[in-house]
Amino acid sequence: MPIRKKRSRTTPGNRPEVIEDPGTMLASSRRWRAAGKAIGLVPTMGALHAGHLSLVELACGENAIVVVSIFVNPRDPEHDEELRGQAGIDAIYRPSAAVMYPPGAATRVRVVGVSETLEGAARPGHFEGVATVVTKLLAAVQPDRAYFGQKDAQQAAVVRRLARDLDLGVEIRVAPTVREADGLALSSRNVYLDPGQRKAAASLSAALRRATDAYATGERRPEALREMLRARLEAEPLARVDHAEVVDPVTFQPPGTLAVLAAWIGKTRLIDNHDLSQPFPG
Amino acid sequence: MPIRKKRSRTTPGNRPEVIEDPGTMLASSRRWRAAGKAIGLVPTMGALHAGHLSLVELACGENAIVVVSIFVNPRDPEHDEELRGQAGIDAIYRPSAAVMYPPGAATRVRVVGVSETLEGAARPGHFEGVATVVTKLLAAVQPDRAYFGQKDAQQAAVVRRLARDLDLGVEIRVAPTVREADGLALSSRNVYLDPGQRKAAASLSAALRRATDAYATGERRPEALREMLRARLEAEPLARVDHAEVVDPVTFQPPGTLAVLAAWIGKTRLIDNHDLSQPFPG
Repeated sequence: MPIRKKRSRTTPGNRPEVIEDPGTMLASSRRWRAAGKAIGLVPTMGALHAGHLSLVELACGENAIVVVSIFVNPRDPEHDEELRGQAGIDAIYRPSAAVMYPPGAATRVRVVGVSETLEGAARPGHFEGVATVVTKLLAAVQPDRAYFGQKDAQQAAVVRRLARDLDLGVEIRVAPTVREADGLALSSRNVYLDPGQRKAAASLSAALRRATDAYATGERRPEALREMLRARLEAEPLARVDHAEVVDPVTFQPPGTLAVLAAWIGKTRLIDNHDLSQPFPG
Repeated sequence: MPIRKKRSRTTPGNRPEVIEDPGTMLASSRRWRAAGKAIGLVPTMGALHAGHLSLVELACGENAIVVVSIFVNPRDPEHDEELRGQAGIDAIYRPSAAVMYPPGAATRVRVVGVSETLEGAARPGHFEGVATVVTKLLAAVQPDRAYFGQKDAQQAAVVRRLARDLDLGVEIRVAPTVREADGLALSSRNVYLDPGQRKAAASLSAALRRATDAYATGERRPEALREMLRARLEAEPLARVDHAEVVDPVTFQPPGTLAVLAAWIGKTRLIDNHDLSQPFPG
């Protein structure tokens, strides 16, 4: 994917610097800032796909310096290598588990409310982990802007809230979900789908598209929209619905216009979402 | 109190700038940092006394810029005024409650373990509030060093832990407790004591001194040291013991050498502490 960027002169030949500890990361960030450079951060969990690269592209268009952080998923050296060849990235911040959870670590960041519903209810403690790790990344990188994907809408809402509540001075930017031709939202989990499951996985975006169409023609009853989402998912024999709701995009409580889905396709849990008041892409 | 400081040229005539919102605070901090100046933060809850001024003095000796923050206690204009006349302070960061707890605020910082024992058990939620506010102050001020008093030893332990765990890149400095001639630790609560209570309040430091003497002459049995603390407090008719323990100064769990006390003198709850392996001052 070609990346436009006005300047990327931090490392010769576009090989990004790899930084592994928060002290070095903060020192680099302060050096860039003292030189008047805006800093963008794209946090990832490795296993990069075109959705992440769209975040990198957005960050490159808005910042002189772009840092990509990698944490959580087991390292994938091939993908790291790919990232190191990616134009426009100035630094890769890749803290180890020992850095992220030092001996005796006891501090947890929790966003009450939005963390507890839907994805938070399905995965107890998940958003507390996300909030704690993201707070650490933002503290070490000190970006002007940090980039998240709309695909993980509830995560983006958690991060927006904590960035504001903790006075972190960072703008949280959320980029549109990148989709395959049949509508499937890109996810590092998609590789786990066999060909039959891969086809069945398109039922999530199909359900969102159907509810969007209904909304566009005047359907506003939350129960009707919810049932429409659920019915389309249930029409797919390989899919098992986890949740299908229409909620407020800030609180993730009804009422609202954000349709949020989670479904199992075999042993793979997929999520997707769309604001029904906006046209469905593609 | 005379304050030595190499340079204090931010505001003419030593009148510190008063800053009320985190965005302005962060911008000032970044300006100072870009000019190569080290920044020290002294967080206070207003109601300043000589203990706070000892923190300011320490900060002035170690940083080109000193920021004092005021938050939590109801404003005391007289004390603010005093602070504004204090040599060496470059800025007063005085966020309003609306800034510190914006509408919809939902993010809480929690330090598991050390927050839950002793003072944490006596005041449920107290250290979560402290941890959340201090994280916000450190995010907005971005100091190189932040200064806390040993008198609030458990608070200092909570802050040290969160600063490290969240990669805040700040050194937490803890200054010795400042005491009256009879040993009473300075506290903004001391003003609530009537003359008889004031005299009785010296029983806390007397208990610590007695246990320190016993430790110096070889007493190591935790139960014996604890009983010694408790007995000295109970010998004072106006004092009611809340807790008297000997704990580890990091975890605030036994075993350890840090003697920690809390006692009610009338309606005023006082705390004090001392590391028994060190000479008692005065």
